[in-house]
Amino acid sequence: MIEDKNSQRTSLSELGEFGLIEHLTKGFVSKNSSTLKAIGDDAAVLDFSGKQVVVSTDMLIEGIHFDLSYVPLKHLGYKAVMVNLSDIYAMNAKATQITVSVAVSNRFPLEALEELYEGIALASRLYDVDLIGGDTTSSKLGMIISITVIGEATKEELVYRNGAKTNDLLVVSGDLGGAYMGLQILEREKEVFKVNPNNQPDLDPYTYLIERQLKPEARRDIYQLLKDLGVKPSAMIDISDGLSSEVLHLCKQSGVGCRLYEDKIPLDPQVISSCEEFSIDSTMVALSGGEDYELLFTVAQEDYSKIKANPNLTVIGHIVPKSEGVHLVTRGETFIPITAQGWNAMK
Amino acid sequence: MIEDKNSQRTSLSELGEFGLIEHLTKGFVSKNSSTLKAIGDDAAVLDFSGKQVVVSTDMLIEGIHFDLSYVPLKHLGYKAVMVNLSDIYAMNAKATQITVSVAVSNRFPLEALEELYEGIALASRLYDVDLIGGDTTSSKLGMIISITVIGEATKEELVYRNGAKTNDLLVVSGDLGGAYMGLQILEREKEVFKVNPNNQPDLDPYTYLIERQLKPEARRDIYQLLKDLGVKPSAMIDISDGLSSEVLHLCKQSGVGCRLYEDKIPLDPQVISSCEEFSIDSTMVALSGGEDYELLFTVAQEDYSKIKANPNLTVIGHIVPKSEGVHLVTRGETFIPITAQGWNAMK
Repeated sequence: MIEDKNSQRTSLSELGEFGLIEHLTKGFVSKNSSTLKAIGDDAAVLDFSGKQVVVSTDMLIEGIHFDLSYVPLKHLGYKAVMVNLSDIYAMNAKATQITVSVAVSNRFPLEALEELYEGIALASRLYDVDLIGGDTTSSKLGMIISITVIGEATKEELVYRNGAKTNDLLVVSGDLGGAYMGLQILEREKEVFKVNPNNQPDLDPYTYLIERQLKPEARRDIYQLLKDLGVKPSAMIDISDGLSSEVLHLCKQSGVGCRLYEDKIPLDPQVISSCEEFSIDSTMVALSGGEDYELLFTVAQEDYSKIKANPNLTVIGHIVPKSEGVHLVTRGETFIPITAQGWNAMK
Repeated sequence: MIEDKNSQRTSLSELGEFGLIEHLTKGFVSKNSSTLKAIGDDAAVLDFSGKQVVVSTDMLIEGIHFDLSYVPLKHLGYKAVMVNLSDIYAMNAKATQITVSVAVSNRFPLEALEELYEGIALASRLYDVDLIGGDTTSSKLGMIISITVIGEATKEELVYRNGAKTNDLLVVSGDLGGAYMGLQILEREKEVFKVNPNNQPDLDPYTYLIERQLKPEARRDIYQLLKDLGVKPSAMIDISDGLSSEVLHLCKQSGVGCRLYEDKIPLDPQVISSCEEFSIDSTMVALSGGEDYELLFTVAQEDYSKIKANPNLTVIGHIVPKSEGVHLVTRGETFIPITAQGWNAMK
């Protein structure tokens, strides 16, 4: 469907690999003092002058991670960056550089890649990260995007997954389940479109959900917010695969258990109403939906007064000794063990 | 063809994503003091204590960069690392960490991924780089490998592409064209195999060529060699796309021209004999063949005595002012302009 959107089409082979990289990256300006040399040599050169360096990488594949029949390429570029930045913010670090490798088949014209890079450029500009390298290659296999992100922090700032202690509070930023319900809406509209391409969908009631799916924002603000509040998390992880999976990672690596309260899980009203419409349990969606890119972290009990009134943060549970296990406490006060397949456990 | 090699087959879905990463990376041990935390958190943590950091990334795609009908997966893993290390050595830096993302379709059993990671592990061990992160994901699209490599150097050690000066000598490590001729041999044997699967090819006369194609070695030794010889290159680049392309990059970025002497280009006897067999001009192969992963660099005239006797290094030309252009000087003393498509220019 992508091809039809562009009235102008420039074949990728007209440019060649070097022309293509130069063309796509010419608008990018480096802003971080740690970026000494970005694109243009065998490797980029960085200088973190004493700070520690954090590195994370993620790959997005057409047909697995995204469906170009309803994801605009500019949004895809933006989201691909967010997915990666989120991992750096989950270390309580500042994201500073990215490399972007893209493989595309010939069915994409240059204009499609330009759209993708517009999204990457917008994300880079808004989040102050420098594009320092990458690779553009042809593919027989559709579109593949691989991003590596680099960040910096002092040793004291960094927060790992393994520092949660008994009695710490379990806190989540924002709300959960929106991205998953956005995907359900888009999948439904795709089916409707197949049957009747002239049907104009009314997506107004789902604006927030669709935005959560198509244009998520990584929680860069939490790093500053916690600093301002004078709170340093004892452990932190980003929520990319659903709350249950991340809670398990955090507890496993910290060697602790936890209690997560169903009635505390923050849900947007659109999540609740669309869950009713689709007859899905909203708790399941929050536990297993994924792609929310919120942060999950633990803080000491004594920090409660500092965070309790903040609209960005919700206390959803607390840490217990490992022997007590990892449980969801339902509205009916039932203890349900959380497993890697949180969804299945709830059935 | 891969599937048939393994008597044992474990489906990837049996493990799940986290089980898979843990399984594939459990044998990796970090050796560099700059690696504080490798796999297991949202991001790896590194500390380069004052050194500058170099970063490069490359993506390899089935059907474009490799053909699994004749590339063993262990070799592919090894080569994928080499391709990336080569970029770091071309900065005159030490490679220290890699991230590896792999996407595979379900036609690959776990044992195939294990073979791939065996090659990655071997390369990491022999070249002292730490695996610090990555992503393993499913694909409908065959196999895709994306690697980011990180290295370190002092500011004084780093060599860029843009430092070549008039009268500098143009030097190349090793010999050229072997990887390309190895590919020709393998492609020919694949065709023979299609016609007669019982035919046992005699590959003895081509051992070196096939090794150059299937198991290239990045020139880590040149960094140390130059240090021992007391020579610092004025500019350097690795030869991944063929000599002509790299010479052009180096000259363009340094704002100079050069003369490259056809009779000085180092060729292995197997390259010469196989070129005769295939009726290809060996100079064309060296200029445009690619995948040799040798280093091309410039040194000051006064360093000539330090490098002239070294069997690893060959002076193949010298730098001239930009106005004099970039030329190949043939055996017949003809000046031929080198263009981005060196191959075509020679026709």
